[in-house]
Amino acid sequence: MQAQLIALDWGTTSLRAYKLGPHGLVLEQRMLACGIMQLPKVPRLVAGQWCDDGFELAFDQACGDWLDTCAQLPVIACGMVGSAQGWREAVYRETPASLGGLSSSLQRVGTLRGIDLHIVPGVIQRSRLPNVMRGEETQVLGALDVLGDDSRVLIGLPGSHSKWVQVIAGNLVHFDTFMTGELFAALSEHTILGRTQQRNAPFDARAFDLGVQVALSTEGEVGPLSTLFSARTLGLTGELSAAEQPNYLSGLLIGHELAALRTLLRQRHAGSELPAILLIGNPQLCIRYRRALEACGFASVSLAEQATERGLWQLALAAGLLD
Amino acid sequence: MQAQLIALDWGTTSLRAYKLGPHGLVLEQRMLACGIMQLPKVPRLVAGQWCDDGFELAFDQACGDWLDTCAQLPVIACGMVGSAQGWREAVYRETPASLGGLSSSLQRVGTLRGIDLHIVPGVIQRSRLPNVMRGEETQVLGALDVLGDDSRVLIGLPGSHSKWVQVIAGNLVHFDTFMTGELFAALSEHTILGRTQQRNAPFDARAFDLGVQVALSTEGEVGPLSTLFSARTLGLTGELSAAEQPNYLSGLLIGHELAALRTLLRQRHAGSELPAILLIGNPQLCIRYRRALEACGFASVSLAEQATERGLWQLALAAGLLD
Repeated sequence: MQAQLIALDWGTTSLRAYKLGPHGLVLEQRMLACGIMQLPKVPRLVAGQWCDDGFELAFDQACGDWLDTCAQLPVIACGMVGSAQGWREAVYRETPASLGGLSSSLQRVGTLRGIDLHIVPGVIQRSRLPNVMRGEETQVLGALDVLGDDSRVLIGLPGSHSKWVQVIAGNLVHFDTFMTGELFAALSEHTILGRTQQRNAPFDARAFDLGVQVALSTEGEVGPLSTLFSARTLGLTGELSAAEQPNYLSGLLIGHELAALRTLLRQRHAGSELPAILLIGNPQLCIRYRRALEACGFASVSLAEQATERGLWQLALAAGLLD
Repeated sequence: MQAQLIALDWGTTSLRAYKLGPHGLVLEQRMLACGIMQLPKVPRLVAGQWCDDGFELAFDQACGDWLDTCAQLPVIACGMVGSAQGWREAVYRETPASLGGLSSSLQRVGTLRGIDLHIVPGVIQRSRLPNVMRGEETQVLGALDVLGDDSRVLIGLPGSHSKWVQVIAGNLVHFDTFMTGELFAALSEHTILGRTQQRNAPFDARAFDLGVQVALSTEGEVGPLSTLFSARTLGLTGELSAAEQPNYLSGLLIGHELAALRTLLRQRHAGSELPAILLIGNPQLCIRYRRALEACGFASVSLAEQATERGLWQLALAAGLLD
């Protein structure tokens, strides 16, 4: 089948490349450890020229052979590649943000091959505490492509910086950011909590659920600063093994995130029921979140698939990059 | 003046040594970077014997010359030196804990010099989420020595793991732990927040106060997981400079700690006024806490001095180590 678009999901630590055919069908995909913070450093020939630019090198590694076969393929990218530390800074579009607005502000970057890379803008919410995203806007658009514009689902994107995005009539109208994943990593690797934890312990439902319950309990009401230390003391008293401690900490932090989310939703939509949730992201992490969301009283939780590549396809289509 | 006691405050990263005279008067003091996690490693002669034990080496460095002059001085120590990773594990005494109970459970360790080191036990609170301290119990006793037993003050010990201790009639009856200081360090050094922060920025009252205010505001009510990201986004929008960001983050975390503390106090003592606060610890940090406590509605805040050395003196006296 004929390739029609190269779509890149280019974040801080990784770069995913998709070769898409008619209707956005994925013909081929790859994942490289070439995020913007770990670009290749060894110079080599790119399109016949000696090159030492990390972005060009990573780009060539990701899809050079696809472009060799078909030099005129349009290329679109989303994520931190458009940040101030990325290849070229793409603007932030303000909320409410839509497919139309985002696709009209793609940032073009000329490459050594003579073709342009088109970077999707981020989204900024200018509230008293401003909020930003880069990459998640594309995933949300990809999920909407399946859900349809009239859905009132709340979209959750668990990860280093979890995002919760409210969409109305195809517009990203509001979102919150929780630094849950990055906080878990920093606590596990760089505080006393990590000293008694087993690294890379397998998922343990009992310990994870206990963490969620503590976050949702009276003790948890005052927030994570005071419950965190229990991830150590429950180890000291023999109630949590080394392998259980990271599972407990994960449940505790996710539980605190969801308790806060529930409070925010009730503040904003007093009296209404908790919304249906659609999760986008790493499947294993989404399963943890679904478990915790159910404990937290969210009745309807589903998981989205292929949101990034669908979103990039929709953006390229709306921007007129596809013939 | 005649030395009567050697008192050691031996924590994770540092070791403070005091030579105390009559009535616990400080005759001489030192600070060494020989906490239990960074003990000396180079073998040398100690009391005429070749020694490669890090605890013995640090002990000799801290007070070997004092003992050379006066070999029979009793020695007492508090802090993480009594933990499972310390020189010898000292028990935890359960709450309510008092001077009498703590001084009756000193853990003796024989040293190469033939004299004993006496380690103060920690304190454990066996609640659903257990809580422990090592070192702070000694500081609290030192502060009580000045306050008197009938005080109803709440004692705050800001630091890596802030403790808030309620004392009734000379007994440590309840305490809470907040991992505020260690969380600040892990966030600043190992997450995206650090990338735009100026390291070792001087204190900036405006940025610190803004962080406290945000923590105490409606947005802050749902806890730090959702406000943390603002330490980055207020930088992206130009509202916080690189030097202001760490000050804002410090105010934000301390504000969240104190908001949680206030809620806990109101849960436990409904209707009563907020208690008077006595702070023990690093003076610059205590000044930050006092500022935030006042913003949080605590009317009476004072700072204790020499709490550790007074506490060690009292414990040695009660244990009969002093003639």
